[in-house]
Amino acid sequence: MKVVITGGTGMLGRRLALRLLAAPDDQSELVGPSGRTEALDHLILVDAFEPAEPPPEDPRVTVVSANICDSAVARQVIDDSVDSVFHFAAVVSGGAEADFDLGYQVNLDGARNVFEACRASTGIPRVVFTSSLAVYGGFRDIVDDTPLTPQTSYGAQKAIGELMVNDYSRKGFFDGRSLRLPTIVVRPGKPNKAASGFASSILREPLQGEGVSCPVSAETRMLILSPRRAVQAFIDVHNSDAEQLGFRRGVMMNGISPSIGEMASALREIAGDKVADRISWEPDAQIQWMVDSWPWFADGVRGRELGFQPDGSIEEVIQNFIDDELDGQIAN
Amino acid sequence: MKVVITGGTGMLGRRLALRLLAAPDDQSELVGPSGRTEALDHLILVDAFEPAEPPPEDPRVTVVSANICDSAVARQVIDDSVDSVFHFAAVVSGGAEADFDLGYQVNLDGARNVFEACRASTGIPRVVFTSSLAVYGGFRDIVDDTPLTPQTSYGAQKAIGELMVNDYSRKGFFDGRSLRLPTIVVRPGKPNKAASGFASSILREPLQGEGVSCPVSAETRMLILSPRRAVQAFIDVHNSDAEQLGFRRGVMMNGISPSIGEMASALREIAGDKVADRISWEPDAQIQWMVDSWPWFADGVRGRELGFQPDGSIEEVIQNFIDDELDGQIAN
Repeated sequence: MKVVITGGTGMLGRRLALRLLAAPDDQSELVGPSGRTEALDHLILVDAFEPAEPPPEDPRVTVVSANICDSAVARQVIDDSVDSVFHFAAVVSGGAEADFDLGYQVNLDGARNVFEACRASTGIPRVVFTSSLAVYGGFRDIVDDTPLTPQTSYGAQKAIGELMVNDYSRKGFFDGRSLRLPTIVVRPGKPNKAASGFASSILREPLQGEGVSCPVSAETRMLILSPRRAVQAFIDVHNSDAEQLGFRRGVMMNGISPSIGEMASALREIAGDKVADRISWEPDAQIQWMVDSWPWFADGVRGRELGFQPDGSIEEVIQNFIDDELDGQIAN
Repeated sequence: MKVVITGGTGMLGRRLALRLLAAPDDQSELVGPSGRTEALDHLILVDAFEPAEPPPEDPRVTVVSANICDSAVARQVIDDSVDSVFHFAAVVSGGAEADFDLGYQVNLDGARNVFEACRASTGIPRVVFTSSLAVYGGFRDIVDDTPLTPQTSYGAQKAIGELMVNDYSRKGFFDGRSLRLPTIVVRPGKPNKAASGFASSILREPLQGEGVSCPVSAETRMLILSPRRAVQAFIDVHNSDAEQLGFRRGVMMNGISPSIGEMASALREIAGDKVADRISWEPDAQIQWMVDSWPWFADGVRGRELGFQPDGSIEEVIQNFIDDELDGQIAN
């Protein structure tokens, strides 16, 4: 199989790549054109940015430094021999809110370039589109049939992408599926421009010996999903049966809903007072407003029926971060 | 006030123009920047097509033959002095399904050009976006909170336009509102490429002495709205209070839901057997499939609370068509 990941050297792209490459050479975890899991022969990681972490070293990997906002680039990378595309490249919520034009350029036009390249391909590739729970707005509790009323540009752009994935799939141009992700926590690495970034920072920075300020109230809840579970969900949605997905290719990924206060308490329990006391509370009305527009509780039947698993608890999420990203070491 | 209508010489654009021009010179029916109804000083009708019916003759009218798919054209027509824009220009359902690229070019890129021109304008124009009940799909009964799951490219493009109207309005770039229209019946003039066109043809053609074939079963129901009520609804949604609309700028327009058989019976009752017998029944699976994906019954609370009025009955719709478009004359 030939697989393309856009945003392939970013946080999620790289972790998906590492996971896919870790499978046996003769059989990846991905379902191919045969309808069964097939060998991964070629993995193309496209990214417009310099990698923050080293890309996987593997003879099957090609790293392409290019921007899918250029339609010719998209067509060049997604050629006739591509079997699957994971579209991760995006401007995140805070970035799309700060730069309206850039948000539409990358999140709408860039996605459309990817979709058009898949359409132009002679095959019918599977396309996994990264959507977000930011497509919802104004509803605290969300279910599969909750209408999409985003209250951020990022959410609007993701909802538009989902509509196109449905339409291109219905027309048979590719076999698309969209995964609506909760906020990824704990995100490793440096903070990005996502308005939700603090939810990772308040755990990540203290565990690494740094102080951090929390811009929202302790009562605020967020729907979260760990990177480990997110990677698994991307593989699951890629492998889902098209018939079972039907005409609605967007699937909501359920997450757990700790309050920010509960996240801080779990950190205290696992890492101790000294670490937890590195969080200071400094309210930011703009971030509080944006986070308040997102849902608190998700109960998606479709994702559950398709077998997608959220995390067990915030404690498990924190412990997995310590194990996966900090080699088990907490900075006391 | 300066008002722009895209698709301004088309069926609905022209009728809205005639209606607006019929008001007293010193006070139109449209609410202007003052928050009260203001005089209509300049009405610009932009259209890429040759008018099928003569445009209104009035010194306040300028007809511009141009295509809003060209962003420079959109910006030129929607200049800094514009107060209101009605965006009617579109490729209809059958056309967008037959020509995928043209559908996205006009219905997505063209709409975006209009929105960008409004954003570039120094004022904050009111923008009325023509949406459609085709944004729904797979639900027989629709209410305000029914999720948008279009099953045609036209419906997808209209749903995308609505998302952009919400986002641009939230950002304060313009004061947008989207009206989700039922199928317009009885559409005067020649048949167009709308898959729903037969619903008008089966009434219009027999009343004018011509035979017509009906491609769907007599049991099929359609949500319909007369041109007269549609024009009124456009004025109503334009004048609606932004506060009352809130962050969801898309309003569903309720319609009546006669079955195709009931429409034929009403025609027989009003115009007699000779006229009604001009309908022949020739099922077309493709059109039946598309029409079956649309909703049968609409019960929108928001539209009702905003005072938008559907027609009283199919008999009233047919009689109004005879009065408005045939000068009261039926071809026996």
